[in-house]
Amino acid sequence: MKIIVAGGDGFCGWPTSLYLSEQGHEVYIIDNLKRRDWDTELESQSITPIKTLEDRVNCWEETTGKKIKMYIGDLQDYDFLSSVFKEVHPDAFVHFAEQRAAPYSMIDREHAVFTQVNNVIGTLNVLYAMREYTPECHMIKLGTMGEYGTPNIDIEEGYITIEHKGRKDTLPFPKQPGSFYHLSKVHDSNNIMFACRVWGLKATDLNQGVVYGVQTHQTRKDPRLVNRFDFDGVFGTALNRFCVQAATGSDITVYGQGGQTRGFIDIEDTIRCIELAALNPPESGDFRVFNQFTEEFSVQDLAEKVYKITDNMNLNPNIVHLENPRVEKEVHYYNAIHTQLMDLGLKPHYLTDARLEELVKHVQENKDRVLYDKILPTIKWR
Amino acid sequence: MKIIVAGGDGFCGWPTSLYLSEQGHEVYIIDNLKRRDWDTELESQSITPIKTLEDRVNCWEETTGKKIKMYIGDLQDYDFLSSVFKEVHPDAFVHFAEQRAAPYSMIDREHAVFTQVNNVIGTLNVLYAMREYTPECHMIKLGTMGEYGTPNIDIEEGYITIEHKGRKDTLPFPKQPGSFYHLSKVHDSNNIMFACRVWGLKATDLNQGVVYGVQTHQTRKDPRLVNRFDFDGVFGTALNRFCVQAATGSDITVYGQGGQTRGFIDIEDTIRCIELAALNPPESGDFRVFNQFTEEFSVQDLAEKVYKITDNMNLNPNIVHLENPRVEKEVHYYNAIHTQLMDLGLKPHYLTDARLEELVKHVQENKDRVLYDKILPTIKWR
Repeated sequence: MKIIVAGGDGFCGWPTSLYLSEQGHEVYIIDNLKRRDWDTELESQSITPIKTLEDRVNCWEETTGKKIKMYIGDLQDYDFLSSVFKEVHPDAFVHFAEQRAAPYSMIDREHAVFTQVNNVIGTLNVLYAMREYTPECHMIKLGTMGEYGTPNIDIEEGYITIEHKGRKDTLPFPKQPGSFYHLSKVHDSNNIMFACRVWGLKATDLNQGVVYGVQTHQTRKDPRLVNRFDFDGVFGTALNRFCVQAATGSDITVYGQGGQTRGFIDIEDTIRCIELAALNPPESGDFRVFNQFTEEFSVQDLAEKVYKITDNMNLNPNIVHLENPRVEKEVHYYNAIHTQLMDLGLKPHYLTDARLEELVKHVQENKDRVLYDKILPTIKWR
Repeated sequence: MKIIVAGGDGFCGWPTSLYLSEQGHEVYIIDNLKRRDWDTELESQSITPIKTLEDRVNCWEETTGKKIKMYIGDLQDYDFLSSVFKEVHPDAFVHFAEQRAAPYSMIDREHAVFTQVNNVIGTLNVLYAMREYTPECHMIKLGTMGEYGTPNIDIEEGYITIEHKGRKDTLPFPKQPGSFYHLSKVHDSNNIMFACRVWGLKATDLNQGVVYGVQTHQTRKDPRLVNRFDFDGVFGTALNRFCVQAATGSDITVYGQGGQTRGFIDIEDTIRCIELAALNPPESGDFRVFNQFTEEFSVQDLAEKVYKITDNMNLNPNIVHLENPRVEKEVHYYNAIHTQLMDLGLKPHYLTDARLEELVKHVQENKDRVLYDKILPTIKWR
C-alpha cells in the first residue's frame, strides 16, 4: 500500500513509518518539524538524542535498503498538501500531525488558539484533499481516549445505542474532553464524521490511550534510528516522568491522590494497530472508531509499578503527592471497551517489569540529557 | 444591566440591541460589519433597505433618547476585544457574532476554514476575555437546533440521562451537525462547556430554531431602523425564500419532498429569550442549554402555509419540488423539548396567517430589490 504518515518525525509517527516500511508498504512522511521547535520554545529536549529527520531516513535506507520519501511542510498549507496528494495518490493517510500535549494547549490563550487552529484546520485540509484527489483514500486519524473524559457509564467505541422515552437510536458517544487539546480532537472527530457522511469518504478514528515505550524492533536496528523520549512537564507522560524521577534519585510525583484511571498502550502495539486499520479499511462513507489501548491503570498504579522496579534496582525510590494542576476527577468509574482492534488480530504487549526496566535504563544511559527543572508541572488548568 | 451584543448589526443582533435598550439596559454593540461584506461578495442584498450601523444607532438615539455605544472590530482581534471588556465590564455578553449560514460554509474549502476559525476562535477569545476581565459576566451564546441533527429519539435541552449496562450518567446530548457551519457551533459548545467547568465561568447556550419575521416593535418606530430580510440561496431561510417567490410570481421551491422538520421562532420571541436568559443567569461554573424555538414545522408545512396566504391574496402561487442540495434525511422523527424558556416566562408568538401576510407584504413593498437570480440554491453539499 502507499501510505502517507503525517507527523512521521514524531514519537508515534517515526516508529510507525519504520514499521510500515519494513512490512513492505511504500511510506511517505509529511512533517513540518514543529515538534522540534516546541522543544526549543520550552527549552527542553528528548532524553534520547534523536537525529534530524533527513539523517534518520537516510540511515533507514542504509540499514534496510528501504526508501522513505519525506515532504517537509504544514497541513495548513493546502497548496503543499495538494501537491503531495497529487504526487503520491495514497491508499491510506495516517494522521499523527497534530499538537498533542494537553498542557501545551493550556499555557495561555495563544497556545489554545494555536492548538485548535493547527489541529482542526490541518485535518479539514486533509479531508478536502482526499475529496479532491483520492476519495478512495482511507484516513487513519489519531484521536485520544481523553476525548471521552470519565463518564459514569462504560465507554463504548465511538457510538452508543441509547433507549430514551420508548425510542432508540445509535448515536455518537457523548464526549467530555479535558483540555483545549482534547477538545481539538473532538472537533476533528466531528468534522471527519460529517465528511464521511456527506462526501462518502472513509476514516478510522483511533482513540488512543497513553503510549509508553521508546524503542521498537525497527528503531533498535541502529542508534541513529532511536525514537524520542519526552520527560518534561508539558510533553512527558506521567509514566515517563516517574521513570526519569526514579532513575535520577528524585521523588516520584503523583498529581493528587493518583486515582485517575486511563487506558495505556505499548508503542509496539500502536504501530501494529495502524497497520491493522490500514489493511482492514471501512466502507466508503463509514466513520469507524476504535479505542486503541490494551490495559487500564490508575496513576497511583503506575507510580507503584515504577517504585517496585526501581526499588529492585536499588535506586531508593520515593512516592510523593503534589497538588493536581489539572481539573479532573481523582475518584471515578472507568471501564472502556476496546475489542475491535483485538478482533482484527492485535496481540497486545503488556506493561511488564522488563518493559519498565528498559525505560528506566534508557534514562540512566542518557542521564546527562535530563533537565531537572523541566520535570515538574508549571502549567495550571484554573 | 450592562450588556454587550456582539454581532449587533445583524438580523438577530440589531433588534435584540434595540429591545434590550428599550427595556432599560445599557447596550454596547460589537460588530465587524462582515455581514455586509458577505452581501457584496455574494452580490446579494437585504430586501429591506437597511441603513449603516452608525445611522441606525443615531436614529435610535434621536427616536428614543437612548444611547447604544458601538465598537467596530473583530472578536478574533484579542487586543480589540480586551479593550472593550476593560471599558465596559459587562454583566452579560450576548454572542451573535458568527458566520451563520450553512450554505456559506459549504461553498468551498476556504469558506469552511473561514467559518470554523472565525466562529471557534472568536468564541474562544471571548472566553479568555471573560476569564481575564469579568469572570462574573454571563455569556449568552447563540447556538442552533441544527447542532442536534435528527436523532430517532427526543432531543433534550443540551443533556441526556443515559442508562447503560446497569449504570447511569447525565451527559452532553450527542450531536450530529449537518454542515461545517453547524459543526462550528458544536465546537463552540464543547469549548464553552469546558471553560465553565474549569474556570468557573457561566454561560447559556441558546440552541435556536429557524428565526422568521423582519420587524419588531422597536424597529417599527422609524423606517431607518428597519431590520434586514435575507432571501438569497445562501443566507435566506426556506420560509423567506417561499415568501419572496410567492410575492413575485415565482414557483415556491421545496427541497426534495419537504419532510425535513425543524423548530421555528419569531424574531419577537428571540429578543425576549435573550433578555430572559440575561435576567436569570446560571450559577458560576454552569453551562446551561436552552432549546430556543416555539413550534415545529416541516418544510412542506411552510410551503403550504405560504401557498394558502398568497392564494388568498390572489398571487396565484405554485409549489414545485427541487433536488435537495443538502445531505439530510427527508423523512425522520423529530421531537425536541423546549420548556426551560417557557418556564422562565416566555409567551410565544406563533406563526399566524397575519405574520406571514406581513412578511409577504414586506417583499411586495421592496419588490424592486429582489435579485431573482440569487434565490435558487447553487451550493451543493456533495
